[in-house]
Amino acid sequence: MDAALPDENAMNPAEHNRFMARAIALAVENVRKGLGGPFGCVVVKDGQIVAEGANRVTSANDPTAHAEIVAIREACRVLGHFQLTGCDLYTSCEPCPMCLGAIYWARPARVFYAGTAEDAAQAGFDDVDILRELQQPPVRRRIPMQQIMREPALEAFRLWQQKPDKVAY
Amino acid sequence: MDAALPDENAMNPAEHNRFMARAIALAVENVRKGLGGPFGCVVVKDGQIVAEGANRVTSANDPTAHAEIVAIREACRVLGHFQLTGCDLYTSCEPCPMCLGAIYWARPARVFYAGTAEDAAQAGFDDVDILRELQQPPVRRRIPMQQIMREPALEAFRLWQQKPDKVAY
Repeated sequence: MDAALPDENAMNPAEHNRFMARAIALAVENVRKGLGGPFGCVVVKDGQIVAEGANRVTSANDPTAHAEIVAIREACRVLGHFQLTGCDLYTSCEPCPMCLGAIYWARPARVFYAGTAEDAAQAGFDDVDILRELQQPPVRRRIPMQQIMREPALEAFRLWQQKPDKVAY
Repeated sequence: MDAALPDENAMNPAEHNRFMARAIALAVENVRKGLGGPFGCVVVKDGQIVAEGANRVTSANDPTAHAEIVAIREACRVLGHFQLTGCDLYTSCEPCPMCLGAIYWARPARVFYAGTAEDAAQAGFDDVDILRELQQPPVRRRIPMQQIMREPALEAFRLWQQKPDKVAY
């Protein structure tokens, strides 16, 4: 048993395949309907799909509407919480850096993906480039990023740290 | 003039400060109202604020509702497009990897930030850790990520590449 996936065998492999097949079907359907890019995702808890998502960037005019983000937001809405504790995420393609970031904030138990970042790049979705940019210091990025007014911004952090009833996340 | 910011001087520094002051005010107000983390953001086009956002993770049960994502989604809704061409983004703190990813997909012209990632980490928001995770190969990440069913997933990419009327993004 792979130490990185201690309870991988707790679920029948056919179950994994069934959930991934649904994520892939959402991706295929999305292209056929012209609603966005070729990506689909489902969130599963206790052996049940709790939310589905497909890429809606161009149809919803929302650059953040990748399949994973759509499915994570919907799953959190359904579950009434801002974290996906105990959930598994099945996505038809390896998540881009934005979606990986969202996954870390949502904290599901595991992620399964089908197509690779290389497959996505070959289809015109080159997010390896985004990861390279993230590794650059801000001033050397392709989109110029400049730091200004740090001192007044610290007030928000001071208030946060002093707040007795804050909800951490 | 900094080559990375060719038209930095096209705008009066006082204008930059005014927009950043609004982003910081949104962050402060957000903590005071208990609506989420200490982060605010505005999107500016042609010298006007077109959208504002504050962190709503815990109040909206949405782990993706960081100030930048909220502001980007709202700006795209207002502008009726999935890209922020010609827009500037002012955020009260250096964007986390998820938000940086969203910024690259939204493609604004420039980003200005006030607090640094270190300031955020000191207040309990350690996204440097997320960037480290992104740089790991999938199987070595803290949230286990496993590749399955690649072959059937390629169908969505094939359909996308063959689609004559696709809207690329």
